[in-house]
Amino acid sequence: MAVAIIAAMPTPLHNDAFLRACLRQSTPRTPVWLMRQAGRYLPEYRATRAQAGNSFMGLATSPQHATEVTLQPLERYDLDAAILFSDILTVPDAMGLGLSFGAGEGPRFAHPLRDEAAVAALRAPDLERLRYVFDAVRSIRRALAGRVPLIGFSGSPWTLASYMVEGAGSDDYRLVKSMLYSRPDLMHRILEVNAEAVAAYLNAQVDAGAQALMIFDSWGGVLADGVFQRFSLDYTRRVVAALRREAEGRRVPVIVFTKGGGAWLEEIAGIGADVVGVDWTVNLGAARRAVGDRVALQGNLDPSVLFAPPEVVAREGVAVLDAFGAPQRADGGWDGHVFNLGHGISQHTPPEHVTALVEAVHRHSVAQRRRP
Amino acid sequence: MAVAIIAAMPTPLHNDAFLRACLRQSTPRTPVWLMRQAGRYLPEYRATRAQAGNSFMGLATSPQHATEVTLQPLERYDLDAAILFSDILTVPDAMGLGLSFGAGEGPRFAHPLRDEAAVAALRAPDLERLRYVFDAVRSIRRALAGRVPLIGFSGSPWTLASYMVEGAGSDDYRLVKSMLYSRPDLMHRILEVNAEAVAAYLNAQVDAGAQALMIFDSWGGVLADGVFQRFSLDYTRRVVAALRREAEGRRVPVIVFTKGGGAWLEEIAGIGADVVGVDWTVNLGAARRAVGDRVALQGNLDPSVLFAPPEVVAREGVAVLDAFGAPQRADGGWDGHVFNLGHGISQHTPPEHVTALVEAVHRHSVAQRRRP
Repeated sequence: MAVAIIAAMPTPLHNDAFLRACLRQSTPRTPVWLMRQAGRYLPEYRATRAQAGNSFMGLATSPQHATEVTLQPLERYDLDAAILFSDILTVPDAMGLGLSFGAGEGPRFAHPLRDEAAVAALRAPDLERLRYVFDAVRSIRRALAGRVPLIGFSGSPWTLASYMVEGAGSDDYRLVKSMLYSRPDLMHRILEVNAEAVAAYLNAQVDAGAQALMIFDSWGGVLADGVFQRFSLDYTRRVVAALRREAEGRRVPVIVFTKGGGAWLEEIAGIGADVVGVDWTVNLGAARRAVGDRVALQGNLDPSVLFAPPEVVAREGVAVLDAFGAPQRADGGWDGHVFNLGHGISQHTPPEHVTALVEAVHRHSVAQRRRP
Repeated sequence: MAVAIIAAMPTPLHNDAFLRACLRQSTPRTPVWLMRQAGRYLPEYRATRAQAGNSFMGLATSPQHATEVTLQPLERYDLDAAILFSDILTVPDAMGLGLSFGAGEGPRFAHPLRDEAAVAALRAPDLERLRYVFDAVRSIRRALAGRVPLIGFSGSPWTLASYMVEGAGSDDYRLVKSMLYSRPDLMHRILEVNAEAVAAYLNAQVDAGAQALMIFDSWGGVLADGVFQRFSLDYTRRVVAALRREAEGRRVPVIVFTKGGGAWLEEIAGIGADVVGVDWTVNLGAARRAVGDRVALQGNLDPSVLFAPPEVVAREGVAVLDAFGAPQRADGGWDGHVFNLGHGISQHTPPEHVTALVEAVHRHSVAQRRRP
C-alpha cells in the first residue's frame, strides 16, 4: 500500500517558470522552449532515428525512443519545458486513415476523406490505439524527474481535417476548401468528430502526466476571415471547454497557436485558453496591449534568425523580449510571456546557435526584471 | 502633322470605374478584376500557350501573344480592368540572372545572388532589355481601344530580392533570410538597386500606356514585424515616391499588395499608394475603418471559393462586398473598393464560376448603392 501511494505521488517540479508564465504569475526569468526542439537539426536525434530504422513513426510509437529524443534538447540547452515527441496526425491515423511518412516527404494518408460515405463512417478513435502516446508521456515524465514540465499536444480540429481531406500537405488546400464551401455539412461533421477526438486525446495525455497542453492550428491562417471563426476557432473552443484543467494539484495551462492568425488575436484570446501563440509577423507589444490580462503570449522569433551568426541570434532574441517588455505591470501584476519561435525550428539550424538564443533570452529577461 | 497628332491622342476610356474606385471617386458599381485573370484556367490561354511552344516566357516576350492572352478574359467576362500579361521576374532576368521556367516547375535563375561579388556587380538593367514589355503595353492599349484601363505591374524590391537570392521559389526563405540577418549590408544594396530598377521599369510602362500600376509584395508577409518595415516597406515607399503619377491627363493610381501583410495594413496605407490590396484573412470592414480616407482597398475573396458551385461563388462574392459595405460615406464622400481575389486565380478554377462571380459582384454592388 505504502509503495503504491509513493509511486502515485508526483515528483516535485524543480523549474516551474514555464507553467507560471502561462498563468501570468511572476517568474525570475522568461521561460523558453522551441517548437520542434527535439528534431532533425540535432545530430543525436538523427542517430536515434537511424537506430529506429530512419522512421519518424518508429520513433514516435516507441515510448523508449520518444523519451530519448524528447530529452535530447534538454541535455544540450537550458530549456524550461519539454514537449512530447509525437505528431499531430496520430489521431487521424488512429481513426483508420493510414498515416505514412515517405522518405524525404511529408505525411500521407492512404485513406483520405473524399466522399460522403467516408465522412459518415468517421468516428473518434478508440484511445487504446493511441496507447503508445500515453505510454510515452508516462515514460518521459519519469525520465524528466521533475526537471521541467512536459507539454502534451494535438492538432486543432480544422488542421487535422485539412490533412484528412487533402491526404497530404497542400499548397492551395483545394480539396478541403472545396468541401468546406461546397458541402459545409460534411466539413462540420468532420470537425465535430475531430473536436471530440482531440479533447479525449488531450485529456488522456493529462491523465498520463502531461502538465500543459498545446493545440496547433497550423493551417488556421489559410482560412478567410469569417470562415476561420466558424470552421476553426469554434471547434478549438469546444476542445478547450472539454479539457481537464487541473492535475497533480496544479492548473494545466492550455496554449492555442494559430499560424498566420495575427488578424484574429483578440478572438483567439477569448476562447478560454491560458496562452495564445503568435508567429513573427505579430508585434508582441501590440499583441500584449490587445489581449490585456486575458491570456499570456507565446512566441515569436522567426526561426530563420537561427541561420545567422550567434551574436545576431542573441540580438534578435533580445529584440523579441523588448517588444513584449518587462512582464511586470504598473499595477504590480504580471503579464505572461513564454519565449518561443513563431514556427517549428528548421532542420538546417546549427545547434550551437540555439545555445546562444537560450542564454541571451535568459540573461536579458533577468535584466528586464531588474529595471525600475 | 495632323495624322501624328491624332495617333498621339489617347483613345477615350469607355469604362473608368476601376480608375475612379482607386481614387475614391463615385462609381455606378464596384469594379472587378482578378489577379492572374489571363492564365492557365482558361482553355483559350492554354491554346495560345501551346502555339508559343508551351513557354511562359515565349508568351510574355511576344507583344502579339501577350496582347492576345491579356484580352482573353475580357472576352469572356465583364471585367473592369486588364492587366499586362508578364511576370514579376522580368526585371532580375534583365539584370542578367538568367530566368527560366522548367516544365511543370516554378521560375528558376541560373545565376542567383549568393556572394558579395555578385551583389556588388548588380546593376539596374538597361530598359532596352525590357523593351518587349513596353511593346506589349503599347500593343495591348491599342487592342483595348479604351474598353477598360490597363494595369502595369512589378514585383516589390523585397519580393524580387527573395527570388534573386533563393534562385527559385522557397518554402523557408532560408538563403535570403540568412543574408538579411547575417549581412544586412548586402541585402540593403540589392534592395537599393531593385528599388531604382522597379521605379524605372514602372515609369516606362506608364510611358508606354499603362493607366494604373500595381506593386506585388508577394513575399512581404514572410518577414518578421520590424524587419518587414525596414527590408520591404521602406523600399516599396521609395518606388512609390519615384513613380510618374499622371498620364494622358489622368491620375495613374498605384496599388500596393502585400500578401500576408494584414498586420501592417495601416503602415502600408501610409507610403503614398492610392490603393492597398489585402488578402482574405483581412476583414474588409475593419480594414476600411483602419485606413479611413487615406487609400482605397482592393480584394479579397479567397480564390478557393471559385472551386465551389456558382451559387456559392456568388454568395461569397456578395459577402465580400457586404464586409466592405456600400462605398458612400455618411458625409457624402466615397470610399474606394476594387473587387478582386486575395491572391492569383488558381489554374484549377472552372471558368464558368468566374462568370457567376463577376455578375454577382456587379449586380449586388449596384443594389448596395441604391440603399438609403
